[in-house]
Amino acid sequence: MKVKVLQNILSANDKIAAENRQMLDSQTVLAIDVMSSPGAGKTSLILRTIERLRDAVRIAVIEGDIASSIDADRIGKEGVVVIQINTGGQCHLDANMLHQGLQNLQLADIDLLFVENVGNLICPAELKLGTQKRMMLLSVPEGDDKPRKYPLMFTEVEVIVVNKIDLLPYTDFDFDSFQRAVTGLNPDVKIFRVSCKTGEGIEEWLSWLKSELGK
Amino acid sequence: MKVKVLQNILSANDKIAAENRQMLDSQTVLAIDVMSSPGAGKTSLILRTIERLRDAVRIAVIEGDIASSIDADRIGKEGVVVIQINTGGQCHLDANMLHQGLQNLQLADIDLLFVENVGNLICPAELKLGTQKRMMLLSVPEGDDKPRKYPLMFTEVEVIVVNKIDLLPYTDFDFDSFQRAVTGLNPDVKIFRVSCKTGEGIEEWLSWLKSELGK
Repeated sequence: MKVKVLQNILSANDKIAAENRQMLDSQTVLAIDVMSSPGAGKTSLILRTIERLRDAVRIAVIEGDIASSIDADRIGKEGVVVIQINTGGQCHLDANMLHQGLQNLQLADIDLLFVENVGNLICPAELKLGTQKRMMLLSVPEGDDKPRKYPLMFTEVEVIVVNKIDLLPYTDFDFDSFQRAVTGLNPDVKIFRVSCKTGEGIEEWLSWLKSELGK
Repeated sequence: MKVKVLQNILSANDKIAAENRQMLDSQTVLAIDVMSSPGAGKTSLILRTIERLRDAVRIAVIEGDIASSIDADRIGKEGVVVIQINTGGQCHLDANMLHQGLQNLQLADIDLLFVENVGNLICPAELKLGTQKRMMLLSVPEGDDKPRKYPLMFTEVEVIVVNKIDLLPYTDFDFDSFQRAVTGLNPDVKIFRVSCKTGEGIEEWLSWLKSELGK
């Protein structure tokens, strides 16, 4: 009985996710679901990207948080369109929340849409929102064992950004061990190493993003 | 209708949590629910505590993880009793899982029981397990804004351990701002600042723990 209810929820979500995808494709908006643990640097990576691409790419952001508009306020200062969604306790965005966000955006005026999910390495992986790409950030201080402990997230994404590499000298993060664990779960995943603080590695991330945008 | 189902789940959990509490109290076991984001240092703090108190205090650990037994293996090497619970995808422990753990322990031989929850700053806060204390770790690289973004967790705990203070010089973590946000939510909460890596601040944490144990 319980399982049946869950299946209904998932299929309702997937139906709306498919509608979202169609809305995005029809307006040639590239949307990216950005997931991570709390504090891994989702907003910082989005800000770095805006700073570098704003003259060439029309960017918008949907911010998902349980509470507050701290991140939306940071991004709003950059002059890009940003919509805050407060989930009111729910530990992830769902396709219906994104749908409401999309209805409040002028999609024809957007090339790239970041959908910043709630900070959580577990639940967001379970629900597709309808974005063309799903990515996650792992920050160096979280440790290299995370793919083994939270395998679904590392399996579900097409892109992994390892952030805070400026802290590598002060931690025991083993990049080879991390990469082996990840490719065991997800052989085709693209991995970038960046520091949003120092800017190291950001070029490679931007190059990939521009090629996805056809720029 | 949906709300009714959720109420039933919660009250079933609370009923088992009350039974757990009674089991623990009757055997004078102090149990602590240890919560945090992934990689904040729950296992490291437990290991530091075992290292320092093992001669005076009989310690056991229940490890909650979605997958793997990495943390249980680390703790098992220290020669203390450890039980691994794999939640199989579920993003938090619940009272029934703890109940099964307790039934597999000799409670009469334990003074202090750490219950390491799944790494998640959201969902574990919603479900009491029946431990006498609930605590959380926040690691410095996660940022000082977390109480504003994840208020429930910071409201529900009696103890907050801020870990990885050795990384303070390399981040912009503002302790005063953090403390203001926390005490606004939870005026009576006890806050410790530690580095499990260097050992800084561990004495204050151990003193508190010993006084709670009546040692």
